[in-house]
Order: sequence, then structure tokens, then C-alpha cells
Amino acid sequence: MNLSRYLRDKRKAVDNSLKDYISLKKKQKDIPKQLLESMAYSLMAGGKRIRPVLCIASYEAAGGKSTSILPIAASLELIHTYSLIHDDLPSMDNDDFRRNRPTNHKVFGEATAILAGDALLTDAFNFISEKKADPAKLIRVIQELSHASGPCGMVGGQAVDIILEGTKAKKKDIIYIHTHKTGSLIRGSVRIGAIMADAPAVKLRSLTEYGEKTGLAFQITDDILDIIGTKEEMGKSTGADSAKGKNTYPSAFGLENSMKIAELLIDEALDCLRVFDKKADPLREIARYILLRRN
Amino acid sequence: MNLSRYLRDKRKAVDNSLKDYISLKKKQKDIPKQLLESMAYSLMAGGKRIRPVLCIASYEAAGGKSTSILPIAASLELIHTYSLIHDDLPSMDNDDFRRNRPTNHKVFGEATAILAGDALLTDAFNFISEKKADPAKLIRVIQELSHASGPCGMVGGQAVDIILEGTKAKKKDIIYIHTHKTGSLIRGSVRIGAIMADAPAVKLRSLTEYGEKTGLAFQITDDILDIIGTKEEMGKSTGADSAKGKNTYPSAFGLENSMKIAELLIDEALDCLRVFDKKADPLREIARYILLRRN
Repeated sequence: MNLSRYLRDKRKAVDNSLKDYISLKKKQKDIPKQLLESMAYSLMAGGKRIRPVLCIASYEAAGGKSTSILPIAASLELIHTYSLIHDDLPSMDNDDFRRNRPTNHKVFGEATAILAGDALLTDAFNFISEKKADPAKLIRVIQELSHASGPCGMVGGQAVDIILEGTKAKKKDIIYIHTHKTGSLIRGSVRIGAIMADAPAVKLRSLTEYGEKTGLAFQITDDILDIIGTKEEMGKSTGADSAKGKNTYPSAFGLENSMKIAELLIDEALDCLRVFDKKADPLREIARYILLRRN
Repeated sequence: MNLSRYLRDKRKAVDNSLKDYISLKKKQKDIPKQLLESMAYSLMAGGKRIRPVLCIASYEAAGGKSTSILPIAASLELIHTYSLIHDDLPSMDNDDFRRNRPTNHKVFGEATAILAGDALLTDAFNFISEKKADPAKLIRVIQELSHASGPCGMVGGQAVDIILEGTKAKKKDIIYIHTHKTGSLIRGSVRIGAIMADAPAVKLRSLTEYGEKTGLAFQITDDILDIIGTKEEMGKSTGADSAKGKNTYPSAFGLENSMKIAELLIDEALDCLRVFDKKADPLREIARYILLRRN
């Protein structure tokens, strides 16, 4: 299979679904113009859409065939975008650049940025609830998504990341941060795809494990790229983790060791897919890509 | 009927449901202690629980009988509490006191306060999705709640409130702010109760109208109390609206006129209930109470 083409095609499909969402919002006269601009500014900033793509790839690996997965997959990007807007705030990571552009609060001010994040988070659940599909399945998706992105998942990871900033965290805390701040939503994305495809329990378990391992590997390579990547490749300032006293895998385990851990995780993730046929090839290629990516 | 007893009993039931939620969270080892403390600090600060109580009262007015409405009603308080935490932030309304205690960010810092708000918002949907009930009905509830609290509802109202702060807003903008910032979630609370009780379309419409009118009246009396109430009664600084250049009903329509508008709205709200029997008495009494309240 051709991974670049796969990623490009799926990203385009997700982008179209997100454009539909913004168009729909524009038609709703009750939404303040400036708020919608702030939401669209970050949502349409051209991310990799890795979470929606993983959701689609997992759906396909589990035998799902229709494009009806799209709004569900796109809602993952609403959650991811809200988390970036809030994480970039001055009282959080205080970042000025994201995806080669000024961060949301630099353009729209802090208050509107906070509210745009709140709006995207709330709309992720609205977007799913408006979908025509078996309600029992939609409720399971909402359970997954709210758990993965809530205080026992993504928000929990971000909280510990910030609380321990500038201190030397224990290794178990660094593992907590990484598996929650980033890992949790990636794991959730994979699980949601599998649930929408009615994957049997044993396949759901394998895909969950795949999601956990690639999710952790993704954050470790993110830490590594913050050290060895360039600002142009990353679309944001690099070296920021170390300057802020962030607890990262390289800071705790060393750069080379972190690379080895990421490689091992990807090997294990691939192993989780051994019972799947070639419909899981995109998941396999994405796992390999995580190791090789430059942004 | 005895309204004080009704309010006390229902508030107690809602508080118990919220305590159950916090206990459940405490048992989940994946939640950071400091984050949970911040969430519980604001959630258990002893609010009036007017949204959950309205939801229950509407449910009962439409013939609902079981206590199974409770977790749904409590989720409205998760949403309301998140919105208070975010609204109090320095970049938003910059308030130091709420319910006679320092605001969340004054105790836990801005970053944790933002994340506690995000966590409560996300968990509102998790709480509903975990409930054992007809999934089709739960999906309708999630549609309602996400719409009422999202960018076309509460978040939209808050955005315009802040954008227009310090300017002399047009009357139509002030009406937008009030019907959205506060009115939308109150309307949603009443509708959600009716939906859970399987109210027929005509009753749902009447209750929706009741919710719109009491919701707007509630925010108008809030504005009035900010002028004529004391700090002790309100549990927060009064006179703050005028000091901040907030666009309020009294600032646009005058104090006496605002009182008259609120009275008229409550009359109309009571009129919406004329087709209902005595099971709607709590809704009637709550509407009257909104006019007479001192906090």
C-alpha cells in the first residue's frame, strides 16, 4: 500500500467533514461571528488529522466499509483542537506559535480562545449526537470519547504535566503524563473506529493495545522531535520542553534510550495486529510512520 | 405546595447525586488528586442547583415519576459549574469571590482551574452516557445539552458578553447575551426533563416556552440583584457589572423597567403552564420565586 496517498486521501475526507461542520455553524445565526472565526482558525490550520485517520483505519481494519465513520472521526479533531488551544494559553504552556501561525489567543485574545476551546469540546458531542446511526452505538462512542478526553484521560495528563513542570518527576509520573496527555485520545480514536465497525471483543482488545502503544510512541517521538527537529518542520518553537522544565522521555530516559523505547513500542503495536488481514495495513504503516516522521 | 421544602428536598437529592459522582471519581486511580480537588471545590460549593431542580420539576410536570432523572439533572450542574469556573478567570470576568469563597483559580491557579472546567464539561457527557436508559433518549438529551451549552447557546452568550464589555451595546445584543449566556441552559434544563418524561410535542413546546421566559427573567433578576443585593446575600461582590462596563438589562432599560420586564416574563411563563395540572405546581412556584429571590 501507498501510505502517503492513504494519509492524503483520508486527511482530505476529514478536512471536508470539518469544512461541512464549519459551514453548518455559519448557517446558524445564533453563533457569534468572532467566536466562530476563532474556532475555525485553529480547526482549519492544517493539522495531520492523525487521530481521525487512525479512527478510520481502525474502522476499516475491523471490517467497516462506509464513509459514515467520517463525522465521528472528525469529532476527534474537534477535541484535539480544543486541547491545543487551551494548552497554548499563557497560564498553561504559554506558546506563541502553532502550525507555523500565531496561537489562537495571540490572534483572538485569551477570553475568546478559552471560549473557542469550550465550544469545540461541546460541539464534538453535538456532532456525534446529530449523526444518524444506531443510538446504542453512538452512546458507546460518547462514553469512549468523554472518558479518553476527560479527567481520567487527556485532561488528567495535561494537569500532571503542568503541575510537575520545573520539578524532576518520577518515571512513573512521566509515564502517566505521556499515556494520558496524548496516549489516551489516540487509544480512544482507535477504539471508536473498532466500535463503529462492530468489532468482536477479541479484536477490540488487540486494537486497544495497538492504540496504547502507538499513542505512547507518538508522544515520545514528539518529545524527541522537540530536541532534534527544526522550527520549520514542527511549525512551532523547538527546544521548548527543556526551556520550560517539562518532564519528557528524553529528560528521564535519555535521547537514545527514548528512541529505542519508541521502536520497541511500535514493534509491539505491529505484533498486536498479527491476527488482522491486509485491511489493517494502513494501521501498520501509520505505526511505522510515527517512528520516521519529522513533524 | 411548600416551595422551600420542595427546593430543599430536590437540592439534597441533586447534591447526593453529585457526591456520588465525586466518590466515583475518587475511586478511579487515573485522576490526578489536585485536579479532582479543584473540580470538587467548585462543584460542592453549595449552589442553588436551580437548573437540576428545574429539570426534575419539568420531568414531574410532564408525568415523570422515577428518581432515574437524577444523574441527568446533576449533569446540568457539572456544565453550570464549569461555566462559572471559566467565567471567573482573570481573562474573562476576573472575579475573586463566588459563593462566599475565593474563586477556583484563586485557590488552585489558572491552569488547574481551566482544566477543572474542561474536565467537568467533558464529564457531563460521560455521566449521561454511563446511565442505564433508552439510548435513543440519552442521545436526544446529549443533543439538547450540547446545543444549549455550546457556541449557539451558553458559550455564544458569554462570548458576546465579553466582546461587548465596556461598549454601549445595542438592545438586541443585550437580549442575545441574556437569552444565551443564562437563558439557553435553563431552557435546555426544562426541555431535558420533558424529554426524559416522554412529553408529547405540544407539552414540550409549552415547557420550552416556560424555560425561555424564566431563563431570561432569571438573568434579569441577577442583573438587578447585582445593583440592589448585598455581598453577603449574593456570596460575591455586587456592583461588579457596572464597574466592569457590563451590558445589563438595568443599564439598557433602567432598573424599574427591568423589574417590570421580569414580572411580565414570569406572568407569561405561568401562562405557558395553563394546560398542566397540579404536577406543574413546583414549576409555577419556582417561576414566582425567581422574582422574589435575594440571591
